[in-house]
Amino acid sequence: MTQTSRFEQFSFWRTSATYRVRVGFNLKGVQPEEHYVNLDAGEQRSEAFLRINPLGAVPALIDREAGQSTIPLTQSVAILEFLEETYSTPAMLPQDEHGRARVRSLATMLAADTHPLITPRVKKYLTTAGNFDEVAWRAWQTHWFGTGLQALEQRLANETGTGTFCHGDTPTMADICLASIIVVMRTFKIEVADIPTVQRIMATCEQLDAFAKADPGRQFGAPKS
Amino acid sequence: MTQTSRFEQFSFWRTSATYRVRVGFNLKGVQPEEHYVNLDAGEQRSEAFLRINPLGAVPALIDREAGQSTIPLTQSVAILEFLEETYSTPAMLPQDEHGRARVRSLATMLAADTHPLITPRVKKYLTTAGNFDEVAWRAWQTHWFGTGLQALEQRLANETGTGTFCHGDTPTMADICLASIIVVMRTFKIEVADIPTVQRIMATCEQLDAFAKADPGRQFGAPKS
Repeated sequence: MTQTSRFEQFSFWRTSATYRVRVGFNLKGVQPEEHYVNLDAGEQRSEAFLRINPLGAVPALIDREAGQSTIPLTQSVAILEFLEETYSTPAMLPQDEHGRARVRSLATMLAADTHPLITPRVKKYLTTAGNFDEVAWRAWQTHWFGTGLQALEQRLANETGTGTFCHGDTPTMADICLASIIVVMRTFKIEVADIPTVQRIMATCEQLDAFAKADPGRQFGAPKS
Repeated sequence: MTQTSRFEQFSFWRTSATYRVRVGFNLKGVQPEEHYVNLDAGEQRSEAFLRINPLGAVPALIDREAGQSTIPLTQSVAILEFLEETYSTPAMLPQDEHGRARVRSLATMLAADTHPLITPRVKKYLTTAGNFDEVAWRAWQTHWFGTGLQALEQRLANETGTGTFCHGDTPTMADICLASIIVVMRTFKIEVADIPTVQRIMATCEQLDAFAKADPGRQFGAPKS
């Protein structure tokens, strides 16, 4: 790649939110210049990275065509919406308003109702101030992954909007958020019972290069398995 | 009001997410028919409500013009995006892509990074399986309200996009999410220090009828103060 990429993406191999952005870029066929921020080594708190994102969080995305704007794009779902507005095809949201609302609702059940509860900062609080031992932390993870995915299963199995993917027969933001939860569950070796529709859709997603190439295990910095 | 409203909205006076939808409707000048679901009395698990939303959660919004679609609109941010697409003025998102991305990012810091951590279901888990007493639960709430709002303050105080409101000089989804956190904090009598920009913007929001009329204390079912 000799041409300079429009985007600089700051990410970490294991982070669910950076996985979402990676799949979004892959689906759109756009290749950002990727920078690795080693969260395990605390690089998100380095002076160099805090100049890029003062909040010290990934994903952070620099758009070299942003003009005046000097702040990075942050928050994975906001970045996916930005990519959708910037590159209209292939669409990650349906064309009709009710379909779009359904996809955004499904995506939010995962990105907002489920994922924030099992992040590293929550683990840190619970295992220090909260007196959780490893068993209690694992029970907490299992509870919230289960709650989120079983609620999703109930919708996917019963709503007519469900197709090969969460909504219809092409991948949307809902599938990206679903897959982002499953890949993290695998990292933690946690299993959730009775989610056949979720599992079927995940298998379908992983047949697509856009998802397969985004897998945490295939990123720079991931441990060799 | 003799005309039938297009929307039926199922909500509860204290719920942060239903507050967001209420402000959204007020800003757009659209009046839904509101139904009160008493979460304290467990009405969200009643047979009647589960026929409307099988997940038993509010907000749930029925669109009488939805045609084929029989499922309710759910998840507050997805509903706000739907209202924005259905009623374009006054806009709750800026016109430019980077502005839209910034507003969605700020909104997500509150609706996804902060709010899910202090919901009733999390309280239930922590005060039973988690062995939190009232003091530990209050410390948890204070920690996450503080973390979320101080991160927001850092952005609002330093980014040039901030105006009278979170982004520019008209209210956006970011302000709705900000206010939805502050009103819940007040219900719990929790205070966060060193957030002058957040407080200034909240005061500005509350000067608008759209926010003032949505206040939890002014809704059906709220205790008389």
